[in-house]
Parts: sequence; structure tokens; C-alpha cells
Amino acid sequence: MSETMQSGPSVQWRSICADGHARRGVLATPHGEVQTPAFMPVGTLGTVKGLTIDQVRATGAEMVLGNTYHLALRPGEEVVAELGGLHHMMGWTGPILTDSGGFQVFSLGRNTRVTEQAAVFQSHIDGSRFELSPERAVAIQEALGSDIAMVLDHVPPLPSSEQLIEDACERSIRWASRCRDAQTRADQSLFGIVQGGLSRALRLRSAAALRDLDLPGYAVGGLSVGESPKEMYGVLDYVVEALPDNRPRYLMGVGRPQDLVEGIARGIDMFDCVMPTRNARNALAFTDEGPLKLRNLRHQRDPRPLETDCPCMACRHSRGYLRHLFLAGEMLGPILLTAHNLTYYQRLMAEAREAIEANEFTAFRERRLAGWAG
Amino acid sequence: MSETMQSGPSVQWRSICADGHARRGVLATPHGEVQTPAFMPVGTLGTVKGLTIDQVRATGAEMVLGNTYHLALRPGEEVVAELGGLHHMMGWTGPILTDSGGFQVFSLGRNTRVTEQAAVFQSHIDGSRFELSPERAVAIQEALGSDIAMVLDHVPPLPSSEQLIEDACERSIRWASRCRDAQTRADQSLFGIVQGGLSRALRLRSAAALRDLDLPGYAVGGLSVGESPKEMYGVLDYVVEALPDNRPRYLMGVGRPQDLVEGIARGIDMFDCVMPTRNARNALAFTDEGPLKLRNLRHQRDPRPLETDCPCMACRHSRGYLRHLFLAGEMLGPILLTAHNLTYYQRLMAEAREAIEANEFTAFRERRLAGWAG
Repeated sequence: MSETMQSGPSVQWRSICADGHARRGVLATPHGEVQTPAFMPVGTLGTVKGLTIDQVRATGAEMVLGNTYHLALRPGEEVVAELGGLHHMMGWTGPILTDSGGFQVFSLGRNTRVTEQAAVFQSHIDGSRFELSPERAVAIQEALGSDIAMVLDHVPPLPSSEQLIEDACERSIRWASRCRDAQTRADQSLFGIVQGGLSRALRLRSAAALRDLDLPGYAVGGLSVGESPKEMYGVLDYVVEALPDNRPRYLMGVGRPQDLVEGIARGIDMFDCVMPTRNARNALAFTDEGPLKLRNLRHQRDPRPLETDCPCMACRHSRGYLRHLFLAGEMLGPILLTAHNLTYYQRLMAEAREAIEANEFTAFRERRLAGWAG
Repeated sequence: MSETMQSGPSVQWRSICADGHARRGVLATPHGEVQTPAFMPVGTLGTVKGLTIDQVRATGAEMVLGNTYHLALRPGEEVVAELGGLHHMMGWTGPILTDSGGFQVFSLGRNTRVTEQAAVFQSHIDGSRFELSPERAVAIQEALGSDIAMVLDHVPPLPSSEQLIEDACERSIRWASRCRDAQTRADQSLFGIVQGGLSRALRLRSAAALRDLDLPGYAVGGLSVGESPKEMYGVLDYVVEALPDNRPRYLMGVGRPQDLVEGIARGIDMFDCVMPTRNARNALAFTDEGPLKLRNLRHQRDPRPLETDCPCMACRHSRGYLRHLFLAGEMLGPILLTAHNLTYYQRLMAEAREAIEANEFTAFRERRLAGWAG
């Protein structure tokens, strides 16, 4: 690890105010500031599926996510680097966070084996063999050039034996340390990932060990993988408390609008999830009154937009038109609904930030939860 | 036919200047003016595949095309009318031309039978039975609310017997007359379609008969269906001469950039074709140096845009990125290439208009043909 790296992370989060556990802050990165709580749309392969980069910006997103596993397989991190890095290749001038590939290696990779050195797996695309070590995960993310890199973690499938979960948790701690030591870019910050399944003891062990590494940010991983929302919120309750106050907290891969609000209520600052984009491609639109299934016949002649006050490009059209696009298999259906759902998520975060500033987050949370339930 | 209809078409074309047979004009419609020669992107089902309506506008398009056959099947013209008509449903404020469905009935419809009254066929979507008469074709297009409607024509498959081609040509003339008599909307203009295959006698017979109907515009149909470019240009040479000078001439479903330039050279004012959009979805980009196949390995690390001087949103990215998007199956590949190809076609038309105005069309045509030939 270089001296530059030790002298201070290039990504820094500062608090503006709090309302209960909910916090309002700003994440400063080499590519600009991000207002938190923040939702990052997922740009798996260097594109947020269905949208041009200007359209992503127009949803209100300030930061996007790229996937190390996917980009290392296609087009390969060296190609990305030759094309100017992930920012330049995508045309995204704001900050980018890359995951480490850990989650995908264990969920998408074939015949994955784990040694202390690395995870070895076969590509889900063509079966070719890859080895992902902590050092390699950092090297790939440095080639991609993201503002925030994530440590490589060992994510065992659930359910697994307690022994395996504990081994994976301990290994993830050692791998986090190796990731930090492998860093060479001063303009990239490394976030730790708290693992430990649903075990309070393991989660607290993981949080404490990562905290000792004094990383510029901390994520909570291994959630939204089949456990109940109540179990997930329970984990957040004690994990957040075990993390430093002056570092951003990132809940990985979560989730539904209600999960975001509940996460914010527990002190989470950053989120990412494919839910708004993936659901859009399946004709599901998020609204304050709950989701709308656009293929439903009842929308056929409906001249109303999805939401009357939404500024997105889908809401300049009727529900009837959107339904027609989906039934006809036209690309514009997924395109417009992706823009709407991402705009919905960004507006939700903006409203949450305003509510925290106004010390009205509890009322906001209750109002939204009631709307979605209704 | 109402008195209003007889008193003058709502669409009118006026000449600005000419350069040989090539003409520069303006088409005035209820939804604004269109500079000619003009290329209309195809919005088959009420959407130009892959683009938002703002993106269609940004390509430079002034007029788009909708397909009667497709829209009558899905979502049905009554649904379109209830959603405010085709303009409002799509969000397109400029002029729209709808074809009559004739071509699709005979190319896409199943078990199509023709009587003097109508074409009867089964939907290619669900096999349901439809009857398309000249009166019905006009009624559908009036429900859609396009600025320009096309007469229903009988388009026999090629090759067909001379007798069938002649019968179809004569029937198309009678149907054109019935279409005119069926019109009830004063804000929609009906264009005739010259048929007759590759027979000079039939083409001239068709043109003369349609000319007698004194329609506000004339199309040349039944071309680009397998004949050689030379044969097509030959038909244009004598058909255009047989059409009135003071009416716009529309070459339907054509074609390649060279076909547009050759059509303009022969006095054609309007074009439509799926070529730029369909090819875009197959990773083929049009350029002044000929088409680029984006999947080719040689583009993998190429940092250059498709064209350095192109203002489209694809040309803000590298060829390497575009290739990656196609290989990864990302929607953004077809989206960006559709924008590029349509922008390419619109720039080509703008350059052609400038060349005509400058009396330099011959040199322009030679330069472009040489560039495409490579």
C-alpha cells in the first residue's frame, strides 16, 4: 500500500444532519459529490440497461454502479482501460462504484471453488476459466477506474452450514485486508463489506475486524438473498451500530422502495439494486400507490400517465400507450418504464433527504409505507 | 366526398428550385412543414423502434410513418383514437403519413384472398380474420389521424403472371377511386400509388388513371421487392415523367442510401424505409465510407466514433464501446445505432437539399456513390 493511500481516502462522506438514525450527508468523490441517502442505478456491463447515459442523468442519478465480474468477462478490463476507462467508455462524468465480483462469482460462476488464495470459476458465458483473488479484484477495479472499489468477499450460498458461513466470514476479513494492501491508485477508495449471514456474532465480528482496517466506507452484504424483510432489518439494526459514524454505509443489492425507506431509517446512506430496471423490462411500474402491471387489460384505454406529477419521459405518454408498447414487444416499453422506475427511485431518495432535513422522516416513512400497502 | 375535400387538399407541396430532375421543395401539412427531398423514419406500431420521440426528432426527422395494418391489429385503431390519435399517442407533433396496409396484407397476412370488394386475410399475430376494403383502409387511417393517408392497393407477389399483375393494377386504380370517395376528414390528404410491376405500359396506365383523380400526391409502389437497382431506376425514369410536376412524389419502402440519391436524381421528393432502423438492430452502421459491421473484431479497441463529424448520440462513444454493447446483447447497442443511422439518413437528405439549392447535385451524387463504393 502506498503512502498516498494511507494519507487519506479520496472518497469522503460528511454528515449534514440526522433525524433519528436516518442521516443526510454528502459523499465527495473524485468525480463529484453525491447527496445521501443515494440510490445507484446498476450499469452491469457499462450501461444501465435500456437508457442512454443522458437519460440516466435525467432520472436524477448522481452515481452509478458497474459490475467487476461482468466487465472482466466482457469486454475485459483491459479493453475498458484502452477505451479510456469505465467513465469515458460509458460517457458518465459522475462517480462510479464497482462491486468486486464476489457476489457474482458465487451466484453466476460455474464450478466455483474457493481456496485461501482465490475463487476459481468458469464464465457463465462461455465456460472459460477465471481466477479471482483479492489482488486481482482490486487490479480489475483499478483498470476500470471506478471511484469506489469493493473488497472481494466470499459469499456462500444460503442455506449453508454454520461452519461454512463462519469460514467464509473470516476469509472475507482476510481478503479485505489483502485488497487494501493491493491498492495502487490514490483516486480509488476501497469499501469493506460486512458479512456473516443472519448470525449476530459473526456480523459483529466482521464489522469490528473491518473497522480495524479503517476503510473509507462500509457495506452490508449478503442480504436480500431470501431472508424475510424483518430479518434483514434486524441485521441492519445491530450492524449499523457497529460501524463508524463518520463513514458512509452502503446496503448492497437492496431493494424494494420499502426496503430503501427502512434502510434509511436505520442509518444506511447508499443503495443499489436491479429492481427498478429489471421490473421495468417486465412491465412493472413503481408508483406511490404501489406497483402497476402495465400488461393488464385495464390500462388498455387509460389516457392517464403513470403518475401525474412525474417529470420522466414515460409520464408524457398514456398508460394505454405504454401497455400497447409492451404487448407489441416494442423496445420503447422497457425504455420508458426504466426511465420511470429509476426516476421514481431518485425522487423517493430526494423526498427522503428533504424529510430528514425537515426532521419529518418518521411521518414520511409512514406515509409512503401506507401508500405502497394500499 | 365532401365539398371540403374537393375544395383543395390540406397537404400541399411547393417547389423551391430544381437541379436537373432533382427538386427541392416544401411539403405543407396540418402538422407543419417538411423540407423535401425528405426521408421518413418508419414507426410501424406507433414507435420508431428503439428511440424515444425526442430522440427521433433529434435525428432531424420532420415526418414519420405509421403502418395501418400493424396498428389496426395492435392496439386497434379505435384504441389509438381513444388515446388521442396517433400523433398524441406517440407524442409526435410533426406530420405523419400512414400507409394503407395493402403491402402488409399481401406480404404478412395469412391466407389472403382478394375480391373486388376487399382483401380478406388472417392476422400474422393470432390468426384472427380481417377484411380490408378501400373504405375500411380510409376509415382506419382517419381514426389514426395521419396527415397523409395512402390508397389501398392490390400488391401481388412477385413473380406473378402478367394477367394477375394487370388485374391487380386495374383493381388498384378502382380502389384508389373508392378510397377518395370514402374520405370524410378534411385534414387528411390521400396519396395515390402507381403500380404495374416492371411493365412500362401498366405503370403509365396506372399513373395516368391516378392523375385523373387529381390527388394531392403520388407514390411509386411495388419497387424494392427483388428487382435490380437498375430496373428500379428505369421504372422511376418513366413513371416520374408521367406524374404531375406540382405534386409530391413518394418512393415507397426504398431504400439504401444510394437508392435515395438515385431517386432524388430522378425527381423523387419523399422516401421511407426500415433499412436504417432494421440494420441498426443488426449492428450495421451507415457511414460516408460505406457500412460498418460493428460486431467485427477489428472494432474491439477502436476509440474512434463511427463518424467524427456526426452529432448523434452514438458518435459520442467509441466504436469499441458500441461493439461491446452488441456482443453483450445490451439494448443500448441497437438504440445508439438506430439514432446514428437515422441521423445519417437525415444528414444525407439535408446535404442533398443543399446540393440541389447550390446546383451541385450531380457532383454530390458522384461523391457519395464513390464513397459508399469504398
